[in-house]
Amino acid sequence: MPRVRITRRMHFCAAHRLHRADWSDERNHEVFRNCANPNWHGHNYELDVTVEGPVDPETGYVMDLKQLRDLVQEGVVAEVDHANLNLDVDWLAGTIPTTENVVVAMWRRLRKRMPAEVELVKLVLWETPRNRAEYSGE
Amino acid sequence: MPRVRITRRMHFCAAHRLHRADWSDERNHEVFRNCANPNWHGHNYELDVTVEGPVDPETGYVMDLKQLRDLVQEGVVAEVDHANLNLDVDWLAGTIPTTENVVVAMWRRLRKRMPAEVELVKLVLWETPRNRAEYSGE
Amino acid sequence: MPRVRITRRMHFCAAHRLHRADWSDERNHEVFRNCANPNWHGHNYELDVTVEGPVDPETGYVMDLKQLRDLVQEGVVAEVDHANLNLDVDWLAGTIPTTENVVVAMWRRLRKRMPAEVELVKLVLWETPRNRAEYSGE
Amino acid sequence: MPRVRITRRMHFCAAHRLHRADWSDERNHEVFRNCANPNWHGHNYELDVTVEGPVDPETGYVMDLKQLRDLVQEGVVAEVDHANLNLDVDWLAGTIPTTENVVVAMWRRLRKRMPAEVELVKLVLWETPRNRAEYSGE
Amino acid sequence: MPRVRITRRMHFCAAHRLHRADWSDERNHEVFRNCANPNWHGHNYELDVTVEGPVDPETGYVMDLKQLRDLVQEGVVAEVDHANLNLDVDWLAGTIPTTENVVVAMWRRLRKRMPAEVELVKLVLWETPRNRAEYSGE
Amino acid sequence: MPRVRITRRMHFCAAHRLHRADWSDERNHEVFRNCANPNWHGHNYELDVTVEGPVDPETGYVMDLKQLRDLVQEGVVAEVDHANLNLDVDWLAGTIPTTENVVVAMWRRLRKRMPAEVELVKLVLWETPRNRAEYSGE
Repeated sequence: MPRVRITRRMHFCAAHRLHRADWSDERNHEVFRNCANPNWHGHNYELDVTVEGPVDPETGYVMDLKQLRDLVQEGVVAEVDHANLNLDVDWLAGTIPTTENVVVAMWRRLRKRMPAEVELVKLVLWETPRNRAEYSGE
Repeated sequence: MPRVRITRRMHFCAAHRLHRADWSDERNHEVFRNCANPNWHGHNYELDVTVEGPVDPETGYVMDLKQLRDLVQEGVVAEVDHANLNLDVDWLAGTIPTTENVVVAMWRRLRKRMPAEVELVKLVLWETPRNRAEYSGE
Repeated sequence: MPRVRITRRMHFCAAHRLHRADWSDERNHEVFRNCANPNWHGHNYELDVTVEGPVDPETGYVMDLKQLRDLVQEGVVAEVDHANLNLDVDWLAGTIPTTENVVVAMWRRLRKRMPAEVELVKLVLWETPRNRAEYSGE
Repeated sequence: MPRVRITRRMHFCAAHRLHRADWSDERNHEVFRNCANPNWHGHNYELDVTVEGPVDPETGYVMDLKQLRDLVQEGVVAEVDHANLNLDVDWLAGTIPTTENVVVAMWRRLRKRMPAEVELVKLVLWETPRNRAEYSGE
Repeated sequence: MPRVRITRRMHFCAAHRLHRADWSDERNHEVFRNCANPNWHGHNYELDVTVEGPVDPETGYVMDLKQLRDLVQEGVVAEVDHANLNLDVDWLAGTIPTTENVVVAMWRRLRKRMPAEVELVKLVLWETPRNRAEYSGE
Repeated sequence: MPRVRITRRMHFCAAHRLHRADWSDERNHEVFRNCANPNWHGHNYELDVTVEGPVDPETGYVMDLKQLRDLVQEGVVAEVDHANLNLDVDWLAGTIPTTENVVVAMWRRLRKRMPAEVELVKLVLWETPRNRAEYSGE
């Protein structure tokens, strides 16, 4: 049975800032530059969710992409879309919402929601068309 | 002398919210839905700036695109990039930062900074790849 | 009151073929080439819907983009998405579903559904990223 | 000798439907939803073909990209472009033309056409800009 | 009879430099900066060709897009693709190949090749995804 | 500590030609076709630089993307942007500037400039939106 990867691209827009409460404003600005703006800034994020599994000979699907979309929408996108990543999201609390930290947190939430027949193999989170972070669970 | 339009695309990322202080939270949420989130959200914006003028027979330029980029960078982009459109920008104060209002405010700032030989003819502000507003000074 | 244009991009995928029943197969193939395939082919279409109007000073909106999206979704997209443009769509019956004919038919349906405060000013229908048709009601 | 991967992106447009003749219409619609439309729908597909091999020290090529394009054009694209994936393609006969099944079938055809000096290492088939399937021969 | 605009996007890649033989190297570098590099540089150009006309009631076409593509390919693209805009192109001889000058020269060549039933209404030449020039014959 | 990959996309435009001085013009044209044009041609290149490393628990960064951008800008992009890849670049001298050869040469320069905490894991060099080469150091 061939093993195929399927990917669904999702999007959301959110505000965030990069800063540590235990650092001075100067130190925050030195490390995080304009990403430390206390009044926030934001992005249109794109999230590519890739799962791998055998192709079901009955349906020709690794997994129904609508089911995948719904799982990702409910599991992570609904909670970050039009939200503030520092203030509004339980599973990011206490985390500096860098692209790296957000993609790892999303992985941890999504991995356990996947149906048994597929494996979550990669998440790519695009903060802008030029900057992205990718996590595969290592 | 042929009249040509040249366009430079600029980008910035910013936080904002849509709300009126003179409305209740319920009314704000009813009209602006999740764009009214009191904790903000944000976007990667793209701004297309189009100017028109005769082609200079000596240089083959309507206007040096680097000069256009610098004018737009200093005139509007530097003030909105990594900023909060509701809190950080003098020339948006008192304005609900909808795409429509922001593009009109940018027009008013940019029109008077253009060199004499060209005319600002269009601004297109993309809030997402699917939503945009366009203003031509009418 | 500034007049601004706002655009919402919609998408749908559909099958079609270009042919005339009153022409021979040879003539159809000569004029429409591989677009005449009797077994159909299809596209991912993108539709840019542009309306123009004054910016409402109370909301900063020309029109709520969600309302625009819903009007277009119900008025045209829901009927063409995952459909056959030759067989499944009442308002295309008897029409060769070229990009030109489809964009004109969509204009006629959408124009009368627009709220009073805005004017439908342009539709752009992309059949592929390299081919598109644009109609402004002339 | 460094081993490099080169990728050529190809495109085609096609009609298809997802359904099983041995299922009732209800069952087909329940599993495949609007993709089961008996009158077909279609897509603009993109196909990324990746081969890997040593860089030829004489030409600086892993493989001439024009040769790769021609192989893929003749081997698969010419047969699916402006075609119906359920009806017109021998090597898809009896297959539900999901993105997964089509990408596996394309792999099987292309692998044996590759010149000796390169290895086919990945195919990515985009059904829409948001949905894709990827196969590496496992 | 509705009048519709159809657009075909074409691409080519070319080398060029911006400089005047009657200026010193210093003056050329001051005005054209790194675009004046005597050893050339280059771009992947995109050219959007828009024609307008009535929809032919028999075919549903303003003009066969393949015919439009062939006209543009033969009329301008074949001569600039994989070429040097300063050295290889008769109809650019003596011109500084700025985006503005190239788009005007293309207009002059294409206008007279159009079939009688359509009007060439706009050319947009993209030098990069962020810089473009547009000409409508004024 | 999770290991994450981050990618920064860079761009540059350059001229080049593919040819060997020890081959006849006929042989060059036969192998490299229009890429052998003695008057050069050029491209807008995109370069995706991917590094991998543990997420720093203090900053949430694998590496500051601005630092990555600056390293790549100084290490390779500044020397190829608006340049001729055959004539202007020391570290490409004696190389046929195919996408394959350029991406390998860039890898060799960038690998030794990376900070200790990250590993350069992939470079993807896009010559056009349809053609790219990828190198991972093998």
